[in-house]
Amino acid sequence: MAHSDPVGPILIALMLIALGAMLGGRLTKRIGQPAVLGELLVGMLVANIAYYFHQPIITILREGDSIYALAQAALTQNVSLAEAARQVLPPTEHTQRIIEVLNSPAGPIATSVYQFIDLLSRIGVIVLLFLVGLETSVREMAKVGAASLSVAVVGVVCPFLLGLGAMKLALPGASFHTDLFIGATLTATSVAISARVFSDLQQSRRVEAKIVLGAAVIDDVLGLLVLGMVSAIVVTGTVSPLRLSLIGMKAILFLAGSIGLGLWVTPRLAKYVVRADIKHSELVFGLGFAFVLAWLANWMGLATIVGAFAAGLVLGDLFSEELGPGHSLRDLLSPLESLIVPVFFVLMGMQLKLETLADRKALIIAAGLTLAAIAGKLAAGFVCRGRVNRFIVGIGMVPRGEVGLIFASIGKSLGVVTDVVFSAVVLMVMITTFVTPLLLKMILIRRQSTDGNDSLSRP
Amino acid sequence: MAHSDPVGPILIALMLIALGAMLGGRLTKRIGQPAVLGELLVGMLVANIAYYFHQPIITILREGDSIYALAQAALTQNVSLAEAARQVLPPTEHTQRIIEVLNSPAGPIATSVYQFIDLLSRIGVIVLLFLVGLETSVREMAKVGAASLSVAVVGVVCPFLLGLGAMKLALPGASFHTDLFIGATLTATSVAISARVFSDLQQSRRVEAKIVLGAAVIDDVLGLLVLGMVSAIVVTGTVSPLRLSLIGMKAILFLAGSIGLGLWVTPRLAKYVVRADIKHSELVFGLGFAFVLAWLANWMGLATIVGAFAAGLVLGDLFSEELGPGHSLRDLLSPLESLIVPVFFVLMGMQLKLETLADRKALIIAAGLTLAAIAGKLAAGFVCRGRVNRFIVGIGMVPRGEVGLIFASIGKSLGVVTDVVFSAVVLMVMITTFVTPLLLKMILIRRQSTDGNDSLSRP
Repeated sequence: MAHSDPVGPILIALMLIALGAMLGGRLTKRIGQPAVLGELLVGMLVANIAYYFHQPIITILREGDSIYALAQAALTQNVSLAEAARQVLPPTEHTQRIIEVLNSPAGPIATSVYQFIDLLSRIGVIVLLFLVGLETSVREMAKVGAASLSVAVVGVVCPFLLGLGAMKLALPGASFHTDLFIGATLTATSVAISARVFSDLQQSRRVEAKIVLGAAVIDDVLGLLVLGMVSAIVVTGTVSPLRLSLIGMKAILFLAGSIGLGLWVTPRLAKYVVRADIKHSELVFGLGFAFVLAWLANWMGLATIVGAFAAGLVLGDLFSEELGPGHSLRDLLSPLESLIVPVFFVLMGMQLKLETLADRKALIIAAGLTLAAIAGKLAAGFVCRGRVNRFIVGIGMVPRGEVGLIFASIGKSLGVVTDVVFSAVVLMVMITTFVTPLLLKMILIRRQSTDGNDSLSRP
Repeated sequence: MAHSDPVGPILIALMLIALGAMLGGRLTKRIGQPAVLGELLVGMLVANIAYYFHQPIITILREGDSIYALAQAALTQNVSLAEAARQVLPPTEHTQRIIEVLNSPAGPIATSVYQFIDLLSRIGVIVLLFLVGLETSVREMAKVGAASLSVAVVGVVCPFLLGLGAMKLALPGASFHTDLFIGATLTATSVAISARVFSDLQQSRRVEAKIVLGAAVIDDVLGLLVLGMVSAIVVTGTVSPLRLSLIGMKAILFLAGSIGLGLWVTPRLAKYVVRADIKHSELVFGLGFAFVLAWLANWMGLATIVGAFAAGLVLGDLFSEELGPGHSLRDLLSPLESLIVPVFFVLMGMQLKLETLADRKALIIAAGLTLAAIAGKLAAGFVCRGRVNRFIVGIGMVPRGEVGLIFASIGKSLGVVTDVVFSAVVLMVMITTFVTPLLLKMILIRRQSTDGNDSLSRP
């Protein structure tokens, strides 16, 4: 009291995001689309309009990862954030806007809101993948393992090659190094969107969903290898097979180790947890385990969500006996999910910048990249055998997200990706992000009507 | 992937806090004490031990509010945090430690972890007071209004006068301005501890709990007036009745306005929310409403938790009909409560610095202040009439917390509170924090056995 609480602006930001997510979700559900589409749309529209009207907090929120780059630069060179922006970002009008905000009295509030919301959204997507992992078991994943592996491998090779081709056609003058990097940006699936669509439509338990999730986890490992390879070619001109196999081994070690050890340790710990006489101790335990594996995965160079998904696999039906119906880990996490997961998708929508549409050259390259991105992953779906809808698998693999952007920005920092090409990658990410829920919903509904109701096996 | 996610350290910090809270809570519940006591103890022990071993992140976490002061100074003077610490903090060995951490590679991680955990804990206490508010209704609060008002007024006047007396005895050489400020630090109740103890023991619905909560809300308004008065005397030598009545009016306007308007608006909005076909939309709505009132309260100069409590009062039984048994707002918030509320109390425990015990002079002053603090609030409990346990009310009002510390630090910045006196205030806060759960538990258990079970009216 009697002093302004720093949590104030965060409360309002969270409230507005929740309100936006609810309105957006309601709207798209009304027209028969998954809620996640509405959250992305609301984020994108509000952020682009607010940016147009120079709203300082939104200007920072939609910058996303580059704020971290600024903070890093500011800390190592002991200068202010605004000064770091002047040094690090390209000298555009847009950068000028960011510097203005950072220098204004709203600057500290904006960065503190950004940092909190960004971290919360990262926890949100960890919760989402943990929940998705909980819906399946290690045994079920092992069953689709071979299918996931082939989908992942084809889904890395095809988009990579098609990406090289698209670059040759759309930007014939680019160097081979540029083509390599852009090919790499097309490889890794950003699984959050597909996982959320399956969950929105209550289809997480179907076999296609499991194949997609398994393939996305393997994709993350392959992505590490591709990035290692491409960077090595650009920086040193050669590839070290030793270094690459080390990267791959570490990733495989993490997955096998955490799942194996987890399956052995968690049932033993769970006994103490259930007896602890602390309210919802199993929830605290489960989420704590997910956080530890997420952190460990990240420490091993993988995405946090890979760890969270592995934690979900391990805990599977662990508490279902002790807790009774309506009190599973899933049920306990459900309110938290509703509060925190939309934050991730609204923020993701906010960071889709419509001004990239203004550059005609970027549009042309983006068209090529998007076609390559979609065709490459659809091809991957078609390696599936048996009673599997290959379109669902292929479309489930389409979304590209932060991973592609990270590859592209590494390419930028190595000097092989120009601003125009980077904008094209951003556009490709935007299109694959929006197209996936639409297509997935369409195909899932069609499948359902021809199948009878067998795909709605969940209560 | 392929880059280190900034959420990593936060995941580990949250996991460790949750684990500590669970172990601490389990231990104190075993010996028949409320879980909150264990959370405070674990926080205090771990933080003091880790500080002893120079753990960088904990060194920053236990600093608490002064990090915000540093950030403010750093931003306005455009210097690094470490440089700001050199300028703002007293030149002690402790300050040297903080500067070391801020200058080390762990510095950015530590400040980012601190900021996130601190904001999350502030949201945690908002959720707690919102839940406590949900357990009661505006009508019930109105019934205890007169009792709360007299408890609050006596609970401000008595500790204030006793504090002046204690200062005269323990530190006869101090100026009258110092005495005034220290008297003021003893006035405002920090209601989170009592609310949590009532909730831990499932006694939130008893009349004494309602009186304490009502009195704490009024306390917050009175505290504003006391601070305004004391600061005016120290700074200008006179008190402006106009300014004081403006402060008071604003606070009353907020409470009457938000509750009145809330009671009229929320049932109308709730209809749309329930029909929204978005999972847990009533949870998002309820928490969003609490966040808005918390923000509004803070904007009016009151504590965020006053707004959160008012929001709980307003929403009371709003959704109970639509949602059915087991799906009330309280039930939906319960898992979130278990995850987020302990963060507040563990962090509060972390910020209790045992090294203050080393100063003998501070110990003597602290003894005097603590006696004045406890006796003053016990006296306040004794103004209650009728079938009310006056000890429960009095002890419920005992805890002092952030408000007292804020008063003392304003006094410090005005030059009337020395470091030794400030340490004494910190000690007083520590003792009242630990003593309240112990005493409250003791008296509630005794009451229960003489009463039969009528105090356990909650299911």
